[in-house]
Amino acid sequence: MKLEQEKCEQRKLIYQGNILKLFKDQVSFPDGNNSSREVVEHNGGVSVLAEDKSGKILLIRQYRYPVKEVIYEIPAGKLEIGEEVIECAARELQEETGYQAEKLEKLFEFYPTPGYSSEKIYIYQASNLSYVGQNLDEGEYIEVVPKTKTELLELFKAGKLKDSKTLIAVMYYLGDF
Amino acid sequence: MKLEQEKCEQRKLIYQGNILKLFKDQVSFPDGNNSSREVVEHNGGVSVLAEDKSGKILLIRQYRYPVKEVIYEIPAGKLEIGEEVIECAARELQEETGYQAEKLEKLFEFYPTPGYSSEKIYIYQASNLSYVGQNLDEGEYIEVVPKTKTELLELFKAGKLKDSKTLIAVMYYLGDF
Repeated sequence: MKLEQEKCEQRKLIYQGNILKLFKDQVSFPDGNNSSREVVEHNGGVSVLAEDKSGKILLIRQYRYPVKEVIYEIPAGKLEIGEEVIECAARELQEETGYQAEKLEKLFEFYPTPGYSSEKIYIYQASNLSYVGQNLDEGEYIEVVPKTKTELLELFKAGKLKDSKTLIAVMYYLGDF
Repeated sequence: MKLEQEKCEQRKLIYQGNILKLFKDQVSFPDGNNSSREVVEHNGGVSVLAEDKSGKILLIRQYRYPVKEVIYEIPAGKLEIGEEVIECAARELQEETGYQAEKLEKLFEFYPTPGYSSEKIYIYQASNLSYVGQNLDEGEYIEVVPKTKTELLELFKAGKLKDSKTLIAVMYYLGDF
């Protein structure tokens, strides 16, 4: 059987929210089996691995309500509908850390949790930064914490990097790929 | 302001599904602001970086309906309520690849998408494998594709590893941390 041949037979919108939609779909397989799928539709996110002029990587600390914990993350935010991915990277970097980047280059695009969500997260690398001032959204409470390579390795080894995009970006920065 | 002090004032269950629950919560901040949060509650997932006796890493290929794509992943599955994490790792490895591991060691626990989901994913490392036979769940169509270190590096460099847990596990395996 070809792995690709799972088909949507019926789609039901359960909930339309601000940041996500939830669907329950009936699907069929070519061998005659049927199943249902709960699917979160999300517009995607963009995150930035940014190195400041002193050679430190800009992490942020932020309370994440769903996991009830303050965690380290790289700067990131939701892609607006119709927004260019690279513009979102520049916007979120500036809003959350206050920095503008002369150069932005795509490193990764990945699915954080493809079993139930359509969300795709992009990781950009930002260089040649200059400070222009932070500009947080309402309801965003963020602390910017620049970290040296040695400090990042310590955080990584101690299991203190717990966010998928941040782990991937920091491992890329630390590793020799 | 302490980053921790975001409080739930009211919780409304929007939908209770098979693999997730969706809530809409009203929250308050100590500065007097209020906001709402859409939160997916998920019981968590367990994944396994497993090396077979020939030194190959067991990847699987699987159609992921939410992203409409066949992607490479390490073996993984949902944590059942009340199940020990390490037992889930052993169970999913055997169900999806047919292998039992003599040794299972925790490498990571991380949040794939902490902005809207409580889900935590664990990554275990499995060694000393022996083949006992695959045992897929109904509605699971999976191809097991063992990969050498060189092949994994090629897949990584070509951007063909798109799943968060798989990227983290493979970068850990390839990198020198």
